[in-house]
Amino acid sequence: MPRIVDRVERRTAIAAAAADAIADEGIEAVTMKGIADRAGVTTGAVTHYFDDKDEVILAALLFVDTAMRVRLDVALERSQSLVDALLAALPNDPASRRDWRVWRVFTDAASRSELLMSHYRAANTTWLNTATHVLAEQLGGEPDRRDAQLVVAVVDSIGDTASADPTSWPEERQRQVIEHCLDRLDVAVVPPSAGRGL
Amino acid sequence: MPRIVDRVERRTAIAAAAADAIADEGIEAVTMKGIADRAGVTTGAVTHYFDDKDEVILAALLFVDTAMRVRLDVALERSQSLVDALLAALPNDPASRRDWRVWRVFTDAASRSELLMSHYRAANTTWLNTATHVLAEQLGGEPDRRDAQLVVAVVDSIGDTASADPTSWPEERQRQVIEHCLDRLDVAVVPPSAGRGL
Repeated sequence: MPRIVDRVERRTAIAAAAADAIADEGIEAVTMKGIADRAGVTTGAVTHYFDDKDEVILAALLFVDTAMRVRLDVALERSQSLVDALLAALPNDPASRRDWRVWRVFTDAASRSELLMSHYRAANTTWLNTATHVLAEQLGGEPDRRDAQLVVAVVDSIGDTASADPTSWPEERQRQVIEHCLDRLDVAVVPPSAGRGL
Repeated sequence: MPRIVDRVERRTAIAAAAADAIADEGIEAVTMKGIADRAGVTTGAVTHYFDDKDEVILAALLFVDTAMRVRLDVALERSQSLVDALLAALPNDPASRRDWRVWRVFTDAASRSELLMSHYRAANTTWLNTATHVLAEQLGGEPDRRDAQLVVAVVDSIGDTASADPTSWPEERQRQVIEHCLDRLDVAVVPPSAGRGL
């Protein structure tokens, strides 16, 4: 494997391990050694790729943001309906649950770090743009940023609460809230293009 | 002052100081000494009222939940409209911003503690019940728990994001989203009872 690919893959594997550690233990309990153990590498390997804990944590947050984005893109491509796509992006499997928990930590940490805040803001703007675009496609009219903001808020709150308390928020409850939200926005729950992707 | 009142007041003052510490520094940086310093008491006074850091943190979380609830109740009583009441409950002043930040920490900590989770669940159920009741009053019909869940989700997401990033979420932006949400739910933004409380 070319050296540059190897380097990127190793950094990514360590970032993913750091995301696992943050979700399981909380950001306060994360150590370079704990991350190394999870990634199956030495602490020296972690410090080779990252200067300090803050840098690994930033990498973990960016990794999670990318993972959530890719998960939604794939779901939008494959799902029968917008509701199914949003459910696929919500914390209904271990990887997604981890990502939502890390996102919450990201939100909290951003309020204490300008670097993290700039990433947090950019990520939120991108999510809103994505929702605006997707809703416009569904409705076939002008994009309505206010409707998109409501969908983002509802999905954000469900993801946050369901990742903390999955017992109270099984997928069926999530589905009911999202269907009701789209219904209130006059978005057809099963669009004409169902089965041919969104 | 009777001893029992004194005891309750001191515990509350320490819980409030712990909430400040959690919001400012993050849960990981909170120490018994730091809480004592903020409360203007000795570390011995903190350990007199609380066995350990976990117990102070629980007290801080319950204090914040109560503060948020009282703030909404007062706002519902005094505001000209439901929108104004919700804005008064959102992070638009330092105390409320602190409470929302602590609530986010509560959500994260609950996923790692059965004791916190039971309080977190109970609090969420109570918020949903309150929203259901308030919306039924506004609409004058049968309470609709699905609409109430949407309002709770939208307020929750705005509070979470605005407390982390107040610059991107001035009160006017919050107002636009809430008004649009209530509009989509066919709730009159200024109810017939405006000016006489809700």
